[in-house]
Amino acid sequence: MQLSETVEWGLHACLALAMMPDGARIPARALAEYHGIKPSYFSKAMQRLVSAGIVRSIEGRSGGLAMARPAEEVSLLQIVQALDDSGGFFRCTEIRQKGPCAAASKHYRAPCTIARVMHKADAAWRRVLSETSLADLRHATTQELIPGVSEATEAWLKETGAVRGL
Amino acid sequence: MQLSETVEWGLHACLALAMMPDGARIPARALAEYHGIKPSYFSKAMQRLVSAGIVRSIEGRSGGLAMARPAEEVSLLQIVQALDDSGGFFRCTEIRQKGPCAAASKHYRAPCTIARVMHKADAAWRRVLSETSLADLRHATTQELIPGVSEATEAWLKETGAVRGL
Repeated sequence: MQLSETVEWGLHACLALAMMPDGARIPARALAEYHGIKPSYFSKAMQRLVSAGIVRSIEGRSGGLAMARPAEEVSLLQIVQALDDSGGFFRCTEIRQKGPCAAASKHYRAPCTIARVMHKADAAWRRVLSETSLADLRHATTQELIPGVSEATEAWLKETGAVRGL
Repeated sequence: MQLSETVEWGLHACLALAMMPDGARIPARALAEYHGIKPSYFSKAMQRLVSAGIVRSIEGRSGGLAMARPAEEVSLLQIVQALDDSGGFFRCTEIRQKGPCAAASKHYRAPCTIARVMHKADAAWRRVLSETSLADLRHATTQELIPGVSEATEAWLKETGAVRGL
């Protein structure tokens, strides 16, 4: 059981958007190409981030994608849940209320001991991601840039004219 | 994205086995019936717990399932991973090494900032489950028994003769 691959895409895409200068925007197609991802499925993932109010899509000739909010105000959990929201990993079907020995349903108001531990684990997972902002991620990433990538990126952006609005 | 339903089954089944007296065993079919689950698919889940060395399957006329180890020595993580082991929720496909601006692969030895946070969240999830033993679960469950269930269970076991080896 794994998260959708769109989670990885969305996190990298938001990081790239958060690293652009203020006012800059980039078409989804160019952002997909930059990450080596096929544009059609990638665009659908971006659309989910737009619907969640995390990414903004600006229309028109000089349009494209940009972060909708400052990176400080976007947690990784928000990005992940916009792309793959299952409401928790553990699915409780209340087995304890089934079978020949179950009591009347009125006795089962509190979640069972098993569901409680599983939900606690899910909460611990969410907590790590809610405590990390896109700004934290951007900061960590700028501390360990891969040699040559910034230069290659700048040259590619210049060549393709992908970034607009500056 | 959710865990397999067999995770819920396996946790309830192990809890039931851990609550049986020493030496007792119960056929997988009866354990499935007790939980209101269809026996065929349930038996496959139990087989995974047997393969993982968590549950023991005793053959013969008075055979059945029993815990293979004391409940103190079985963590919930072991049960969950035996039933749904994906090696973590986040799948990193190293997107950063793709696309037109990526550097040579030798520069990408350490996991990226995104993968690190996602793996940290996965580790937090596993930690909660690794710190809870089946004995903890059994203890918590006996503190909040649902009225009438123990009595109904005893009567059902007597009627069906499901528990053996005593």
